[in-house]
Amino acid sequence: MSSITIEQIEGVVREAAALMVRSGFEIHDKGTRENLVTSSDLAVQDFLTERLGALVPGSGFLCEEEDLNDIAGHEYVWIIDPIDGTANYARGNENCCISVALTKGGEQYMGVVYSPWRQECYSARKGHGAYCNGRPIHVSDRPFADGLLFTAMSTYHKEWSRICSDIIYDLYNRCNDVRRTGSAAVELCLTAAGYADLYFELRLMPWDYAAATLVLTEAGGAVCSFDGNFPSLYVPSMVIAANNAANCKKIGDIVHVHLSGLPY
Amino acid sequence: MSSITIEQIEGVVREAAALMVRSGFEIHDKGTRENLVTSSDLAVQDFLTERLGALVPGSGFLCEEEDLNDIAGHEYVWIIDPIDGTANYARGNENCCISVALTKGGEQYMGVVYSPWRQECYSARKGHGAYCNGRPIHVSDRPFADGLLFTAMSTYHKEWSRICSDIIYDLYNRCNDVRRTGSAAVELCLTAAGYADLYFELRLMPWDYAAATLVLTEAGGAVCSFDGNFPSLYVPSMVIAANNAANCKKIGDIVHVHLSGLPY
Repeated sequence: MSSITIEQIEGVVREAAALMVRSGFEIHDKGTRENLVTSSDLAVQDFLTERLGALVPGSGFLCEEEDLNDIAGHEYVWIIDPIDGTANYARGNENCCISVALTKGGEQYMGVVYSPWRQECYSARKGHGAYCNGRPIHVSDRPFADGLLFTAMSTYHKEWSRICSDIIYDLYNRCNDVRRTGSAAVELCLTAAGYADLYFELRLMPWDYAAATLVLTEAGGAVCSFDGNFPSLYVPSMVIAANNAANCKKIGDIVHVHLSGLPY
Repeated sequence: MSSITIEQIEGVVREAAALMVRSGFEIHDKGTRENLVTSSDLAVQDFLTERLGALVPGSGFLCEEEDLNDIAGHEYVWIIDPIDGTANYARGNENCCISVALTKGGEQYMGVVYSPWRQECYSARKGHGAYCNGRPIHVSDRPFADGLLFTAMSTYHKEWSRICSDIIYDLYNRCNDVRRTGSAAVELCLTAAGYADLYFELRLMPWDYAAATLVLTEAGGAVCSFDGNFPSLYVPSMVIAANNAANCKKIGDIVHVHLSGLPY
C-alpha cells in the first residue's frame, strides 16, 4: 500500500511545468499536421516518469509520448499526458496542461491537471472531492438548454469529421452554445468547475481524460462512453460527460441516433 | 480635429474594467437564452459613453445595449460593446472584453479591446500598427492547411446553424482545427496576435468587430464580408478574416459554395 498523497503529485507536476514554460522548443509532427510533439513534451514526460516512479516504487506507466506502455502486473499505474493541447502549446496559447492520473488496481485513484499559463491546478482523490488551486469545485446545475458544450470534430482522424459534425449540430440545437479550447483535459476540468456543462468527443486517448474525468466525477459530474460505461483507461474511447447523469445520458441518446457503432 | 490619443482611450477603458471585474451583477436575457445582458454591461456602457464623449466633444455613439444609435451628423463616432462575450462573463470565464472603436468620417480610426481577466489590452490606430499591452503584434504566416479557425454557428439565430455547420465542416477539412472562445472581439485579436489564422461568422453586429478588425488589419491581417468588401460599421455583417488576403479569399470562396446570398 503506497502512502502517496495528492500534494506530492501536485508538487512533482508543478516542478515539471518549469520545463514546459521555458522558452525555446522544437516542434515535430507525428504523421499528420494536427498531431504534434515538441521537445518540451518529451522533457516533461521524462521528468514525470522518473520522479513519479520514485514516489511509488514498482508503479507502471501509460504515457502519450514514445509509446510508453508498461502497465501489466502493476497495482499502481501512472497515466500521463506530458502536454495536453500541444497544438496550443506550440502557438503559445494558454489552453494546455500536464495531466497525471494514478490508478490503483485498475481504478482511478488520484488525478492532477495543471495548466501553468492558466494558473489552474485541478486535483482529485477518489471519494474526496475535486479542487482547483486548493479550493473545492463543483459542476453547474444548468439544464441542458442552457448548457455550454465543449466538443471537437475528431482532430486526428478527419475521416470521422462528418459524423462528428452531424452530432455536434444536433447537440448545438438543443443546448446554448459550443466552446472549444483545444485541450480535452482543460475542457473536462472547466466543466468540473461549472464553466461549461456538456462534453462530447468521438475518440480520445486515456491520457487525455484519465485525470480530468476523476476531477469531473469528484466535482459531481457524470462521464460515460458510447456503451454507457465509464471510458476505458487503457484503450481509446468516446468520452461523453456532463454536469449530471441525466444530461450525460441525453448526449449519449443523441449520439446513438447518429452512430450504431464506433468507427474504430 | 480632435487631438485624442489611443492612450487616452486605453485609460478610460481600463477604468471601465473596474466596473466589469467587481463581484456581483444581475443577469437578464434579451429574448433568447443565448442573448444575455448583465447589470455590468449597462454600468460599463454608461461609464464609457460619459467619459469618451467628454474626450471628443460632439462625438456620436453606436452601442450594443439600450439601442443607443446616435451616429447621424457626427464626424467622430464611438462604436462600443461594453462586454463582448457576455455569456462567458456571466459564467466567470476569462474570454470576455470591452470593445471600443472610434471612427472618423465613417472610417476606422482607433480601436481598443481590453480583456481584464486575460490581462490583454489590444490597441490600434489606423496606419500605426497593432499592439497588445504596448508590444507590437503581427499575424502568423501559416498556410491555410495549418490554420486554426475561430468560428461559431450563429448563436443568436440558430435557424441559420445548418448553413453555418456546413460551411464550418468544409473549412475544417481544409485547415488544421477549430477553436471557439465565445467572444468575437477576443478571437479577432488572438488572430491578430498570430495564435489563430482564420475566422468566419455568418452575422455579427458592428460593436463586435469595429475595434478588433482594426487591430487585425493593423497587425497585417485581412478582413472582408460576404461581398468581398470590408464589413459595414453600421449594420450587421458577415465577418471573414485571416492572416493574409489569400486565405481570407479562400474562406470567402468556400462560403460562396454554400450561400448564394445572405439570409438576413
